[in-house]
Parts: sequence; structure tokens; C-alpha cells
Amino acid sequence: MNPNHYLRDLGETAKKASRAIASANTETKNTALVAMADELIKQKSAVLIANKKDVDNAKKNNLTDAFIDRLTLTELTVTNMAEGLIQISKLPDPVGEISVLTPQPSGIEVGKMRTPIGVIGIIYESRPNVTADAAGLCLKSGNAVILRGGSESFHSNQAIGMCITAGLKAARLPEGVVQVIDTTDREAVGQLITMSDYVDVIIPRGGKGLVERITNEAKIPVIKHLDGVCHVYVDEEADIEKALAIAENAKTQRYGTCNTMETLLVHEALAASFLPKIGERLSAKAVEIRCDEVGLNYINNAVCAEESDWYTEYLAPILAIKVVANLDEAITHISHYGSQHTDAIVTENKSKAMRFMKEVDSSSVMVNASTRFADGFEYGLGAEIGISTNKLHARGPVGLEGLTSLKWVVFGNGEIRN
Amino acid sequence: MNPNHYLRDLGETAKKASRAIASANTETKNTALVAMADELIKQKSAVLIANKKDVDNAKKNNLTDAFIDRLTLTELTVTNMAEGLIQISKLPDPVGEISVLTPQPSGIEVGKMRTPIGVIGIIYESRPNVTADAAGLCLKSGNAVILRGGSESFHSNQAIGMCITAGLKAARLPEGVVQVIDTTDREAVGQLITMSDYVDVIIPRGGKGLVERITNEAKIPVIKHLDGVCHVYVDEEADIEKALAIAENAKTQRYGTCNTMETLLVHEALAASFLPKIGERLSAKAVEIRCDEVGLNYINNAVCAEESDWYTEYLAPILAIKVVANLDEAITHISHYGSQHTDAIVTENKSKAMRFMKEVDSSSVMVNASTRFADGFEYGLGAEIGISTNKLHARGPVGLEGLTSLKWVVFGNGEIRN
Repeated sequence: MNPNHYLRDLGETAKKASRAIASANTETKNTALVAMADELIKQKSAVLIANKKDVDNAKKNNLTDAFIDRLTLTELTVTNMAEGLIQISKLPDPVGEISVLTPQPSGIEVGKMRTPIGVIGIIYESRPNVTADAAGLCLKSGNAVILRGGSESFHSNQAIGMCITAGLKAARLPEGVVQVIDTTDREAVGQLITMSDYVDVIIPRGGKGLVERITNEAKIPVIKHLDGVCHVYVDEEADIEKALAIAENAKTQRYGTCNTMETLLVHEALAASFLPKIGERLSAKAVEIRCDEVGLNYINNAVCAEESDWYTEYLAPILAIKVVANLDEAITHISHYGSQHTDAIVTENKSKAMRFMKEVDSSSVMVNASTRFADGFEYGLGAEIGISTNKLHARGPVGLEGLTSLKWVVFGNGEIRN
Repeated sequence: MNPNHYLRDLGETAKKASRAIASANTETKNTALVAMADELIKQKSAVLIANKKDVDNAKKNNLTDAFIDRLTLTELTVTNMAEGLIQISKLPDPVGEISVLTPQPSGIEVGKMRTPIGVIGIIYESRPNVTADAAGLCLKSGNAVILRGGSESFHSNQAIGMCITAGLKAARLPEGVVQVIDTTDREAVGQLITMSDYVDVIIPRGGKGLVERITNEAKIPVIKHLDGVCHVYVDEEADIEKALAIAENAKTQRYGTCNTMETLLVHEALAASFLPKIGERLSAKAVEIRCDEVGLNYINNAVCAEESDWYTEYLAPILAIKVVANLDEAITHISHYGSQHTDAIVTENKSKAMRFMKEVDSSSVMVNASTRFADGFEYGLGAEIGISTNKLHARGPVGLEGLTSLKWVVFGNGEIRN
């Protein structure tokens, strides 16, 4: 199969289907989502058999345990996929909402209408559950989608894709609304991300290397997630109990997530009272602490941090700690070393909180809350396709709204321009 | 001068300055804008002398009259530039606005805050007035900007740049907030559009060729304007008088603008009554009409349209006209041949109007109004940096809001995640 022709065919099909799904009503879209969920449950054993092929291959190829863990589906995870689709069917439909109309001096009334983006290309690693999640979110937001999962999850994705197609058919929607790429040819990715005639946006989900490569090579806008070097700054006017709870939670609730705190900044006035306590709590959870020289005086078992530590997304039970002179130094540190993902201040002083909120240029900025809350579900989006580190369009957790665009609508009564 | 080092220096300076301007208050920004305007008036003769150098060179190099017209400044145009800056100073400051906060089950309250984008690179042709307009809009929206005008307007841009710098100084803002590139080296553009460490977005202003080249080569998001193949569809339930006025205005009010109608679609039921009248009106203004075969029966002096006409942005007194069977055919035509810029329906039937609004995927969709209204001033934005044909981020006329982004803000009281 020539990937060139194959991909262009997929693109053309998606573009055609995107018109149908853009104007589909909410009921039709929800019918499709529920039918997909039903089909996943009905075909559970077929999906698990396909998945077993992938897992067996992965074991044969000596892939890591973590890799195989992400790849493996169980009865429960298939049920969860189906549940996820049902949940998406219950979310409000963002498409077609019109903002308040503003009358203009000419007589026209001007507003904005929320619209689908068009065709979305999603490139992800070997996590088959993404196939169902991404398909559901794109469909509900009125977009057609082309899915390219990791080649090690090929059989799983094809089996899940068949359930999705059945759901589309049940709702009389074109099958082209969701297409799972049917080749493991690596050139297919290169072509997908340059087909600007057919694809409106690319969403890569995976490690930083994959995302950077795709961003560099794409000729289409990319909604990307790079790294999360997240900070908590404990201000001198912090409530120490809140600060302890937030810092511990932000580091230890989960280690491998992008919204986990990687560097803790502490005002020097609190160093003596706060640092020994947080050191104890983290040591109890076997977190390795890498500290600046001042901090070393207050924490047992800490090692001295190197310059590179301030830049590092550990994704592991390791934390960098730095004592700072004031709010300015904290903001400057975050601006220099951070990744503009999620940063929090702990303080009881409202004007300091607002300065931090305004001046820290990250996709999520928090006061007196754990960075772990930076998440589509916790923000009330109902679901998320990922967390964007872009500055334009969608920033932070991306839910249905982030998969839509706005167009201007003008209502007139025969007005012409002078 | 090595453009490599020179551009990186500009980038670093802009990035530093972007932090200062992002947190500058509204009063400081307005002080700078007014001081820039004052300085432009004070330095009017210096600006005009610099401009004369550019114009003399352009004449020596036999550039076209239209080119020289765009390049030439007069006392009036310099006054207008200053007026434009004063107007921007009067617009509301978008930065820092916080949306309604939504309480979540965890206890946190979640909202969005409007923020500057950071550093904006603007590349434009030899129209020196853009230097002042673009600087003013970027500054008011809290962004630092690097300006690269056409090399034929070098002396004019440098002179205007000095007035801008004086205004920044008067408001004690860093000079790095607005930097006019000080070299005509073409490599500078290539470097500017790939410095993703320093520049957050590129806005090219110019012909389609320039914009396409920049979009293809950029490693940074581009807010771009391609072409405007705009349509008016006269529905069978149109008010004929409104339709005549709108069609005439959309074509003839100005020929060279992107929101000018290029193709008129007419429902077959109105062909006999509407086409002879619009033909007469347009002939009176010497507009050449290129028509499909059905339409030819109703319009004198029309020529037969070729397939390529439906794709063409004439920017000239030429109009393509096609008779269609119904709303569906009109929408399909626009979807196939249009450029997703601005399209209008003329109809008294509300449900048809809403179908057109929803299904036509263009940055502006209008009911019973001239396409010429697609403009930042007419939409009440106060000013515009351009009209975007992007689907993501800013779509259609881009004013101050389009030069900003949104970040998530979370207010807690010690909440941690379970």
C-alpha cells in the first residue's frame, strides 16, 4: 500500500465526513457514543483477544514492563472505555452556542458562534484506551478524526476501531468521522502531519521527544503537551499546615504525572519552621530531596542540588527545594526554569496571591491548592484530550471546548457599508 | 552584522521586556501610547524626510505606482498614525480580566484569566503606517513586539521606531517592548520565524505568496491571512431590494479588499427577477460579469465563467455569478470553492439563515448584511491587526483580544487531591 495515496484518501474521506458531523445534532452524536459503548461491551472478548496478540508480540520483543502495562487491556479497562463514552454523551454539546450579540453603529448585530475545528489528527503511543477516548471527544465536539496509535497496539486499535465504526453506523453517521490508520508504516505519521489540505490540527500524545519531533515537522497547527516542571512557592505569609499538605500532595499523590510538583520554593523566613517538617514528611515517603545550600541546613538526608535540577521534570520520587528571599525571586525562578505548565503559591496575603497569578505565565496558576488539580476532570470539563502547553488556542487541560473554534456571526437587515 | 547573533539579541531583549510589559498597568501603557503619538507629531518633518529617502529610492528602482502609493507618507497620514495610537489608548485593557469562577466538588474555584501572549513578530510589506499601528496594538495587549517591515521602507520605519522608543521611555517602559529590526538582510526574516525560544507568534501581513512562504517555513505558530473568496447567496426567500443593495455593496464598495464579494450565488427561482437588475447595476459601474450558462440568459454583456473563476479572488471589478438549485447547492459550492473567509446569505427565512450560519465554515458568516462589514472596526473591536484565516486561536478580524491568551486560575483554601 502506498502510504501517500492511502493517507490522502483518508484525508479526503475525513474532510467529507467532517461536514456531516459538524452539522449533526446533539442527539445523533449521543446515539453514536452510546452505540459505540454498547458495541465495546458486546465485543469485549474480541477486543481482549486482539489485545493479547499485541501484548504477546510486545513480550516477544522484550518491551519494558511499564510499556506492557500501558498496552494491556483487561475486562475492567474495556468497561471503563465504554463508561467513558457514555460520560461524554452526557456532557453538554458545545457546538452552535452563540455569544451575546452586540449591536454596532451600522445596525448589524455581531457575535460569535462555537464551531467544530474540522479534521483532527491524533498521534499517540501504544495505549489502546486512547482510541476510544479520543474518538468520543472529537465526535462530540463535531470533528472528524484520524487516529494513529503506536504500532505495538495495532491489533487492539483495529478491534476498538471496529466498535467505533459500528456505533457510527447505528447513528447513521458516515464511517469517515472516525478513522483508525490501518498501517504501521512510519511514513504515515510524516504525511499525516503535513496534509494541511485535509487536516486542521494535530494532537500528539506521548513523550517529549515524540511531541517535539512532530511539532518541528508539522505543517499544521499542533496542540502539544511538552513537559511539566511545576512549582509550589510557600510564601512567608503561608499557613504552614496548608503549605505542608499542599507540598506533600503535589509531590507524592502521583509521581509520574505532568502536574506533579518538581521544585518547591520556600520563603527564607519560613525556612527554619517549614523545611524540617516537609523534609520529615517526604522522607517518610522515601522522596529524595535535592536542596540548595541554605536549605541543606534544615533538612536531614538531603543532597545538594545542581543547576540542572532546577530544569528537571523528574517524574519520580525526587524533589528539588530552593530557599528564596521573596516573591520576586520566586517568580523570577519560575519564569527562568519552569515550563509554563502549572505553578502554585501558598499564602494568606491576597495581594501577593494576585501578583503571583498575574505574573506567572503558566497554563494553570493556583493559590492555596495542589498542582495535581490541573486536570480536565478536576476543572469540571468532564473529560480531557490532554493538557496543552501551547500559548495560543487551547492552554492547559483541553476538553470539548478546546476542540472547537469560534466564528463571527453577523445578523443584519439589509445593511450595507458606507 | 551577523544576523544570527543580532536576531538572538533582539529575541532575548524582547523576552525580557515581555515580562515588564505583561505586568505593566493600564495607565502606564496608555501613557506610552499617548507619548508615542505626541512624539510622532513633534517629529513629523523628520519622519517625512526619512520617508522621502525611501520614496526616492523606490522611484529610482522603478517600483510600481501602487507600491509607491502605499509607501508614501504625508502630513495627514502621520497625523492619522498618531490619532490611531490615541484611539488604542482609549480602548479597554483586555489583560487581567478573570472569567466567572466555577466551584468544583473538590472545593477549588476555577476560572480563566486573560494574559498577553508574550513576544509577537510582525512581518509586513513596505507600508510604514503598520509600524505604529502594530506597535500600539501589541503594547496595549501587554506583548513585546519585533517588527520587520519591507526593506524599501527602511528609513521610514527607523524614524517611526525612534518616536515609539521615545514614548516607551516617557512611560519608563523598557525599550525592548517594541523593536524595529535594523537590517534589510533577508535572512533576518528566516531567523525570526524559527526562534521559538524567544518568539511566541508570527503575524505576517502582505500578499498570499509572502504569507504562504512564512507559514511553511515558520517553527512558531502563525496568525495568518490568506485569501478572501467571499460569497453572497441570494435565497429564493430573499427580499429583492435588500439583495440588490447587499450584492452591489459587497462587490463595488471597494474592489481590492479581502472581504469583497467575488462570487454571487442566486437561487434559480429568483434568476429571472433578480439577475437582470443586478446585471444592470453592476454594468453601470463597469463590473465585468462572468456567469454560468443559466445566468447568461438573464444578464446582458456577461461572459461565460470557467471552472477557475469559482476559485478566484479577483480584487478587481470582476464578479462570478452562478445560479443554484437550493440552499444545499449554495453551501456545497461555498465549501468547495470558498476560502472560509466571509460569506453571507440574503433571506427572510430564519431557519434557512440559521442553517447557513451553522453549516458554512467561514471566519465570518452573515445574514442580510454586506460582506464588507467583516472588519475589526465594524465589529466593534476598536482596531485590528488584521483578519485571520486560521481556524485555531483568532479567527476573522483580530483586535486586542486576539493578541491575548487565556490561562487557568485556581483559587483554593488548602485543598489537596485525593
